[in-house]
Amino acid sequence: MKILLVGYGAMNARVARIAEERGHEITGIISQSDKTYPYPSVKVEDNWPVADVIIDFSHPDLSLPVISKEHAIPLVTATTGRKEEIMSELEAASTVKPVFFSANMSYGVHILTEIIKYSVPLLQNFDIELTEKHHRKKVDAPSGTLIKLYDAIKEQREQSYPVYDRTAKENSRTDEEIGINVVRGGTIVGEHEVLFAGHDETIQIIHRAQSKDIFASGSIDVAEQLVTKKPGYYTFDNL
Amino acid sequence: MKILLVGYGAMNARVARIAEERGHEITGIISQSDKTYPYPSVKVEDNWPVADVIIDFSHPDLSLPVISKEHAIPLVTATTGRKEEIMSELEAASTVKPVFFSANMSYGVHILTEIIKYSVPLLQNFDIELTEKHHRKKVDAPSGTLIKLYDAIKEQREQSYPVYDRTAKENSRTDEEIGINVVRGGTIVGEHEVLFAGHDETIQIIHRAQSKDIFASGSIDVAEQLVTKKPGYYTFDNL
Amino acid sequence: MKILLVGYGAMNARVARIAEERGHEITGIISQSDKTYPYPSVKVEDNWPVADVIIDFSHPDLSLPVISKEHAIPLVTATTGRKEEIMSELEAASTVKPVFFSANMSYGVHILTEIIKYSVPLLQNFDIELTEKHHRKKVDAPSGTLIKLYDAIKEQREQSYPVYDRTAKENSRTDEEIGINVVRGGTIVGEHEVLFAGHDETIQIIHRAQSKDIFASGSIDVAEQLVTKKPGYYTFDNL
Amino acid sequence: MKILLVGYGAMNARVARIAEERGHEITGIISQSDKTYPYPSVKVEDNWPVADVIIDFSHPDLSLPVISKEHAIPLVTATTGRKEEIMSELEAASTVKPVFFSANMSYGVHILTEIIKYSVPLLQNFDIELTEKHHRKKVDAPSGTLIKLYDAIKEQREQSYPVYDRTAKENSRTDEEIGINVVRGGTIVGEHEVLFAGHDETIQIIHRAQSKDIFASGSIDVAEQLVTKKPGYYTFDNL
Repeated sequence: MKILLVGYGAMNARVARIAEERGHEITGIISQSDKTYPYPSVKVEDNWPVADVIIDFSHPDLSLPVISKEHAIPLVTATTGRKEEIMSELEAASTVKPVFFSANMSYGVHILTEIIKYSVPLLQNFDIELTEKHHRKKVDAPSGTLIKLYDAIKEQREQSYPVYDRTAKENSRTDEEIGINVVRGGTIVGEHEVLFAGHDETIQIIHRAQSKDIFASGSIDVAEQLVTKKPGYYTFDNL
Repeated sequence: MKILLVGYGAMNARVARIAEERGHEITGIISQSDKTYPYPSVKVEDNWPVADVIIDFSHPDLSLPVISKEHAIPLVTATTGRKEEIMSELEAASTVKPVFFSANMSYGVHILTEIIKYSVPLLQNFDIELTEKHHRKKVDAPSGTLIKLYDAIKEQREQSYPVYDRTAKENSRTDEEIGINVVRGGTIVGEHEVLFAGHDETIQIIHRAQSKDIFASGSIDVAEQLVTKKPGYYTFDNL
Repeated sequence: MKILLVGYGAMNARVARIAEERGHEITGIISQSDKTYPYPSVKVEDNWPVADVIIDFSHPDLSLPVISKEHAIPLVTATTGRKEEIMSELEAASTVKPVFFSANMSYGVHILTEIIKYSVPLLQNFDIELTEKHHRKKVDAPSGTLIKLYDAIKEQREQSYPVYDRTAKENSRTDEEIGINVVRGGTIVGEHEVLFAGHDETIQIIHRAQSKDIFASGSIDVAEQLVTKKPGYYTFDNL
Repeated sequence: MKILLVGYGAMNARVARIAEERGHEITGIISQSDKTYPYPSVKVEDNWPVADVIIDFSHPDLSLPVISKEHAIPLVTATTGRKEEIMSELEAASTVKPVFFSANMSYGVHILTEIIKYSVPLLQNFDIELTEKHHRKKVDAPSGTLIKLYDAIKEQREQSYPVYDRTAKENSRTDEEIGINVVRGGTIVGEHEVLFAGHDETIQIIHRAQSKDIFASGSIDVAEQLVTKKPGYYTFDNL
């Protein structure tokens, strides 16, 4: 595939490296900056190099005009922030090109979410607790993936509510509580654990990322499928 | 419910205690031995006390005649060993009474198996490894539950084969290998771990039993449902 | 040994059962209540039955008069609450009898603490995070054992301070932070995890209790040693 | 520091990258091959470029002549295989230069070993089980690090013997058994777990490597210290 990247931060540098290792070609970078890049760079308003697919790990300021520009190139979006706007622009664009959106491009994290959705109704008498571990520099807490897991659980246990600090509570756990635990240390790439605790038994489901490459290679996996699709709005659920 | 127990080993003593805590009544023990029991005991060939359900954690020598005797009492069988014979007798008996069979009465272990069945086809590029941990006195290895998990995986990955000792191998892992690891120590009640190891990410699914009570209370849960059923052969899958 | 119990709650009932299994004798229960107990009961002010050692899992209201009464029977105290008072009375009593105090009678938890003390100075560039998991009914958080672990770490990393809720923070982790995570669910007896997270590697040290019997049998282990000691104040560190 | 590398396989390429990131300089590569390298290459018998320290992640055929050549440059050796020969040559060389040897350059793995040595005598009634997990391409099993851990335990529990396959055994676990479990899958960099299983409680100590960089950066840490030392034979224990 010929790939056009939106921005060229750490994650898109990984995408470029892994895409080339897998035999794809990076035809250019869309960027509003005047920096020098290892690939030809263009601005949003320029004519873009020929491409089969666009991969975007940038930020909404750059993503939004790329999404809404008139073109028919399939688009893989992994931008975080201003989710509503991004989704609404993608919705509009999906009439003329296939677009894909996920805040977490790891296939394993996607499957983790599916496994949790499958498990929750089977484990109705089990308490649920969530823990995520990331490197010491990660400021946002809890992680976007943990929020996604929590949302998936809450859809099935509608009375659920999160508890962030049990040391501040005076009462014992309710059935509806979901404890949210955030660990930060070292260079941990990312761990997510869902604990189902029942009477005399527990089930733990843990996803562990070893390298940020999973997000880059996940986006390429998606791109490889997206180029075969008709225009439409795709996620991991319907790809 | 009025419950009749088959045998009175450590597990049925637990069943009796938990059943009574839950408001049920133990009306007798079927045993070929002449020992004294805390409940009225009868032989297989005797007239049995009135009962709504029979729970059997004994051994095939005792289970088989209990199953095949002419009676219409719902029957929960958790016997291990001579599985084919047990199943064939239960099949025959299921025309006149509801019968239930599982070598592991823990609800959590059952759900673990369901989760694994759901996960395997979603994680096709992931290597699978199984580990079980039990107390130092457990002789049989691997555990019946691990074998059940392995069988569930093999149904979907038909080329799979087990590897019990990697230190004896000369080659690196194949796609079809499933490593079987057995840990024995202390008084560990039972842990089962399924590891899916992929490219730069892993998913681990772990069941941990804290007390053998889960098997006893699982059998009572089943009994409570079985007494409402028509004659037939039941397992966790169709109960 | 002849053992006198202080109070007869769930934990002392365990002590009685395990002590008898190990060949010891329960000679009585000290209690201010008029309930009926399975052993002869006396009030603090009565003459007590003959005993080699006293084991106390009660509460300060009962423990304090038992400690300060004039007698020379070795005393194992596992009371929680009003720690300063308890320790000061034990100090006074230790001139005439050997006394032992620990808020956690598990040998494994004691060794966990020792291992952590040993590890902290060796892992100076590693971030430390603590997690404890207990059953859904436990109200106090974090657990006494986690506090003990935290204190042991803080003795060696004096600038440390605890963080109970990372979702309320705006900045990334400092070197001095120790995250405290509290999980509650099901019937988990007790797990404590110390995570050392460094550059591209982590070391995790986890203690897992399977039954409250470890506290009961730990107190008997201590009693067996304490009866051979001269008067004095003992803990796990100098027993 | 000016660093001379022995060989230029995957690991020494990492050493070069990390050393440069940390402000050191690679002055050359000792290799018997005629390949082209990103740094000046010399043969063992040539005059070597000036260097403060030599780092060797090669193989005995290359390491041995490098060690025994007449020179006084401090030498960090991480070669695996033909350990006796390597150690005996290093011993001889240590009279004129500081030499360091370890088959595992990770600081965390070294500390793991120290923690285990500290823990074993404290946990005499606990069964010990070892598990290591590595990527699917690793052929040798168990890992060198697991063997090192086993040796450290055996020094203190002299009657210990390893059990590689419990499914082939007919008896229950003895006190002296140490189960060795080997997991292979995906791209796992390396995990080592020591399980102490006692009566109703367990202690688990786990080291997890996230990247092979820990071995490269560990060797540079060692080199930085070794250049300040007098001639002698050093390991992690006396550095």
